[in-house]
Amino acid sequence: MNLSNLFNPKSIAVIGASPNKDKVGYSLVKNLLAGNKRRIYPVNPGYKKILNLPSFASVLDIKDKIDLALIALRADIVPQVLEECGKKKISNVIIISSGFKEAGKNGLELEEKIKSIAKKYKITLLGPNCLGIIDSYSNLNASFSTEMPLKGNIAFVSQSGALGAAMLDWAKNRNIGFSKFISLGNEAGLTEIDFLQYLANDKNTKAILLYLEKVSDGKKFMRLAKKITRKKPIVVLKAGRSAKGIAAVASHTGSLAPEDSVFAAACRESGIITVDSIRQFFNFAKLFHMDIFKPLKRIAVLTNGGGPSVIAADLIDLSKSLELASLKNSTKTALKKVLPAMAAINNPVDIIGDALSDRYAKTLNILTKEKNIDAIIAVLTPQMMTQAEETAKLLGEFAKKKPILPVFIGGQAIYKALLEFKKNGLVNFGDSRDVVEILDVMIQHNSKELRSSHLASPVSYLSLLDFEETKKLFSNYGISLEGEFVKEKSGLASAINKFGGSAMAMKVVSLDVIHKTEFKGVKLDIKNLVEAEKSWDEITNSIKASRSTSLRANANALEIDGMIIQPMAKGKEIIIGMKRDKTFGPVIVFGMGGIFTEALKDVSSRIAPVNKPEAQKMFGEIKGYPILKGLRGEKSVDFAKLENLIVSVSKLSLEHPEIQEIDLNPVMATENETKIVDARVMTN
Amino acid sequence: MNLSNLFNPKSIAVIGASPNKDKVGYSLVKNLLAGNKRRIYPVNPGYKKILNLPSFASVLDIKDKIDLALIALRADIVPQVLEECGKKKISNVIIISSGFKEAGKNGLELEEKIKSIAKKYKITLLGPNCLGIIDSYSNLNASFSTEMPLKGNIAFVSQSGALGAAMLDWAKNRNIGFSKFISLGNEAGLTEIDFLQYLANDKNTKAILLYLEKVSDGKKFMRLAKKITRKKPIVVLKAGRSAKGIAAVASHTGSLAPEDSVFAAACRESGIITVDSIRQFFNFAKLFHMDIFKPLKRIAVLTNGGGPSVIAADLIDLSKSLELASLKNSTKTALKKVLPAMAAINNPVDIIGDALSDRYAKTLNILTKEKNIDAIIAVLTPQMMTQAEETAKLLGEFAKKKPILPVFIGGQAIYKALLEFKKNGLVNFGDSRDVVEILDVMIQHNSKELRSSHLASPVSYLSLLDFEETKKLFSNYGISLEGEFVKEKSGLASAINKFGGSAMAMKVVSLDVIHKTEFKGVKLDIKNLVEAEKSWDEITNSIKASRSTSLRANANALEIDGMIIQPMAKGKEIIIGMKRDKTFGPVIVFGMGGIFTEALKDVSSRIAPVNKPEAQKMFGEIKGYPILKGLRGEKSVDFAKLENLIVSVSKLSLEHPEIQEIDLNPVMATENETKIVDARVMTN
Repeated sequence: MNLSNLFNPKSIAVIGASPNKDKVGYSLVKNLLAGNKRRIYPVNPGYKKILNLPSFASVLDIKDKIDLALIALRADIVPQVLEECGKKKISNVIIISSGFKEAGKNGLELEEKIKSIAKKYKITLLGPNCLGIIDSYSNLNASFSTEMPLKGNIAFVSQSGALGAAMLDWAKNRNIGFSKFISLGNEAGLTEIDFLQYLANDKNTKAILLYLEKVSDGKKFMRLAKKITRKKPIVVLKAGRSAKGIAAVASHTGSLAPEDSVFAAACRESGIITVDSIRQFFNFAKLFHMDIFKPLKRIAVLTNGGGPSVIAADLIDLSKSLELASLKNSTKTALKKVLPAMAAINNPVDIIGDALSDRYAKTLNILTKEKNIDAIIAVLTPQMMTQAEETAKLLGEFAKKKPILPVFIGGQAIYKALLEFKKNGLVNFGDSRDVVEILDVMIQHNSKELRSSHLASPVSYLSLLDFEETKKLFSNYGISLEGEFVKEKSGLASAINKFGGSAMAMKVVSLDVIHKTEFKGVKLDIKNLVEAEKSWDEITNSIKASRSTSLRANANALEIDGMIIQPMAKGKEIIIGMKRDKTFGPVIVFGMGGIFTEALKDVSSRIAPVNKPEAQKMFGEIKGYPILKGLRGEKSVDFAKLENLIVSVSKLSLEHPEIQEIDLNPVMATENETKIVDARVMTN
Repeated sequence: MNLSNLFNPKSIAVIGASPNKDKVGYSLVKNLLAGNKRRIYPVNPGYKKILNLPSFASVLDIKDKIDLALIALRADIVPQVLEECGKKKISNVIIISSGFKEAGKNGLELEEKIKSIAKKYKITLLGPNCLGIIDSYSNLNASFSTEMPLKGNIAFVSQSGALGAAMLDWAKNRNIGFSKFISLGNEAGLTEIDFLQYLANDKNTKAILLYLEKVSDGKKFMRLAKKITRKKPIVVLKAGRSAKGIAAVASHTGSLAPEDSVFAAACRESGIITVDSIRQFFNFAKLFHMDIFKPLKRIAVLTNGGGPSVIAADLIDLSKSLELASLKNSTKTALKKVLPAMAAINNPVDIIGDALSDRYAKTLNILTKEKNIDAIIAVLTPQMMTQAEETAKLLGEFAKKKPILPVFIGGQAIYKALLEFKKNGLVNFGDSRDVVEILDVMIQHNSKELRSSHLASPVSYLSLLDFEETKKLFSNYGISLEGEFVKEKSGLASAINKFGGSAMAMKVVSLDVIHKTEFKGVKLDIKNLVEAEKSWDEITNSIKASRSTSLRANANALEIDGMIIQPMAKGKEIIIGMKRDKTFGPVIVFGMGGIFTEALKDVSSRIAPVNKPEAQKMFGEIKGYPILKGLRGEKSVDFAKLENLIVSVSKLSLEHPEIQEIDLNPVMATENETKIVDARVMTN
């Protein structure tokens, strides 16, 4: 899709233009006139002139060819007007108006209507319910944002107009510029994916900030993001990460947010950086504004005060992936020469409270040459002699040699320094944590979110495959599920015979009995037929008893279908699972099994397909990994077998779209065996 | 200690006063003159007049009685001058000068010297190496801070002068005031504890902010804090939480920081709120400035934009202890009446982008009356119509009815709103996360830090009590340690006899063999004498074999003392431990035992003494608690027995100061038994 006409149209019609300064239709015309010279046509039958431009009753009355139309009218009039745009052969339309999908049933109908009109006339449509777009390089403000951003290297794409407006205002105050700003609105036509595609090749865009509540096509999003993040960082602020947040999203745009853990896994695999607060989002804008696009690991702290330097050292040392750079001896010697005796010449480098700007300069001159340093956090606290403004100025110079992240802490005393930063392209962070957390997330992002479980949501019992069906399905993928299903007590003998000798487990099969141990539905260590028959009776009696005492509404309906007889398995309990996500497809989950998954939520997830190297990474991501590898001389489990199992589950899930959920729990793993003890497969 | 003369002296000598504006000795005189009228005496033999005041060659030349002396001279002259203060009977002295303990060996000697002089003359001494003190109510600036804070309800006590200066400057810019500011310096005399004691009863102080790198007396600190936090919140920003941070503290003040997990546990028990960044510290200052001192749990979000409202809802929903307030139906009905149809009337309440200030007012009028709301986060994004300044104004009015936390996001467009907040006593947070994280930490603070293990540090093997000594020691405290120590193979028969019947475990005893399973030093399930003798041989052979293959330097020195024979114990593995901290004394640790403690670090800690209710809280604090309680119908372990065990270990540890560490690992717990399988007691 070629969007260049959208970002640099020669002629624009504003449908719903207004002479009333409080109206969106006024701001649109005003903002367009403030930019590069373009042919602007207000459309409004009631008014003769708007901002000195003649008005038209309809786009059809304009003789000129129109590249772009903006519509800011009541929702119910929009379809008719869009129809006229089609007839006028306008190929780009932005619908600013709200009152569509986000407004309920009637709005949804209106939105379907404009979708089909756009399709009929092949109109490239942005919106409805959006702020519009801005291109600072073509100097186009096709939005009702009062703020025209400065030129910059960041593209900002937002599913929230309010956040867009706030970000533009915030950024301008710090001289942070944008290449483009796109308010996506309801995405009846163009989606975040279309713009990502365009921004991938936009030479003015070096980093992309995305505020997302939903993703229109998960797989496509990932494929595209994977490509882009090799060249440009993408930072996503994803809203709707909690139950309450998802509810708020629904009321905001009428969309369904994807499950957060799934989205986090998708981002991780695509190289996308995720953040969870506006502050972090803004802090990434600061970073990109300072031309920092690559991860920085070895950090030096330069400071004129002991307290703030210790706090910064703590934060770096306690971060997941950053480290305090170790300075070479030659660097320390050089520092010793230029600094007073009381200064600390190890990292953090504390040039103490009476430091004037020249001491900052002398120190930076040495630190910017040190090869073991990737970036310098420059802390300044305003003390009696401190020259904040001068120091800010020279930081700008040294930042050309090595990334410098200013942390000036104060109010009035650092005010002029902040003005200086506006001039020299730096920007203040105000707290070391702000810097440390985004640098850290840049290296090792969202591993935390990956650790949440996917297996909590309820399933429909009716769609559970039975044991023999599961066994057969699995065997097609080389997955072995040992055991025999026995329908009647009389069938026990032949099953026991089959596995003769080894100890057996017996499990009740019942669509109603999900958590078996609750109903005493499992018996272990059965050694012979006599014990097996005794166990059969005990299980059936226990379940009968639970019928009368259970408070569950359906207690009387408990049905026993039979029992599964399996040889006992030893080893470490592992869980392998799959849950199909609406946006991303099958998500494979791996973790320490049994009760530990429930209590500790220690799992790793991946979007299918999962290959062997990816499976290996999943092992390393769970906290229990050292246990599986074997502590204190214990033997490791057979990871190759586990790899095979994960890859097979991934393959099976992709080839069987009717399967919604797979739960192998537990899988027992030893140094030479990997046995599935319990398998549940849920289908549509 | 009565410090009122320190905070409101009538006559002050400034020793080292200077007419040079760049000198601390000038600022001190100037700052004192700017405050309430007091008799100020510059002391400096070289100058006749300083700021129009006559100078004296020595304090001994001043005829007036002197309540307070400030010393700002080179470190090596300070002892002599302090001696003169003593002779002049000046009872309060603040030494501003640096160059003492923090400067190395010579400085340390100087500091010892001034300590003994202060003792000799009973001088109440603050410093050295500090900024001084400020009292905004007595209008005294006895510091070289350029900033005189406004009157406020917060006392700020800091072990870093730099952070002090930055905080004062930052706060003034937001009209946040302080009752007192105290820069502690090296604490040669007065410590944080003396000032806490004073502030406990200071009527102008309603909350205390403490920046700490060390604690002078852990137990005293806790006792005092426990009392104060019942009336006034204490927030501690503790630096030196990591290895690198501790190193930085040492170079900063020459002090040893207490172990972070121990300090966190101490704070938790004392009701102290801990934070780990300057931003959080400053955000608490904002909260107290707005007269919010008590935890607020049920939060309403009011917003004019969907995106920021979803983000806030996410943060609240994902917080540990906050919740989105559920609005009563009557409240929703009332909101529906005054808000446009597109508005969201569930919490978050989204009054949408075209809201003027009157819509904020109408909504707040309803929300401030809702009893289910403890506090309102008021989000504003600057959109086309938004009236930021007017909205800021009316928030000030409604904040009198219910706590309101403003989150205005933007730059120039919210500038006048920020000025309005300066007038009306509110203060902007800029991001919902800032609010959510401090409100959350206020309710459920530092539980995270509590989860780190104390048992990782190396111990001296030579101080290990042997099995029989341990058994005897434990029996004095009602702690049963089953088993027999057998020195020679020939002694096996009588031991086996003693526990006749039940299955046995055999463990090698050797000061050199610490991780027994590594050396195959344990045999389980021994049923009779024959098996026991076979096990004996296998263990000794395995250890002999390891001598030749081990890469350890001391492999040849491995010594076997004998074996312990114990009846086998079943159940869930628990660990109970004690480690003595230099500052806080015995710290009791409880967690899920064995390899899970090592891999998952899932433990809870308490400073001794631990009573039964505290022990119960420890159970609830570990992630594995549901496992101990029993999942899926399993029986719970006997928590009463565990409680007794913890309380006994606490008592034993307090009564035996020579014991440095106790490690009961594992303790096996079932529904009716709690057996110690392995116990290690380390003494001095």
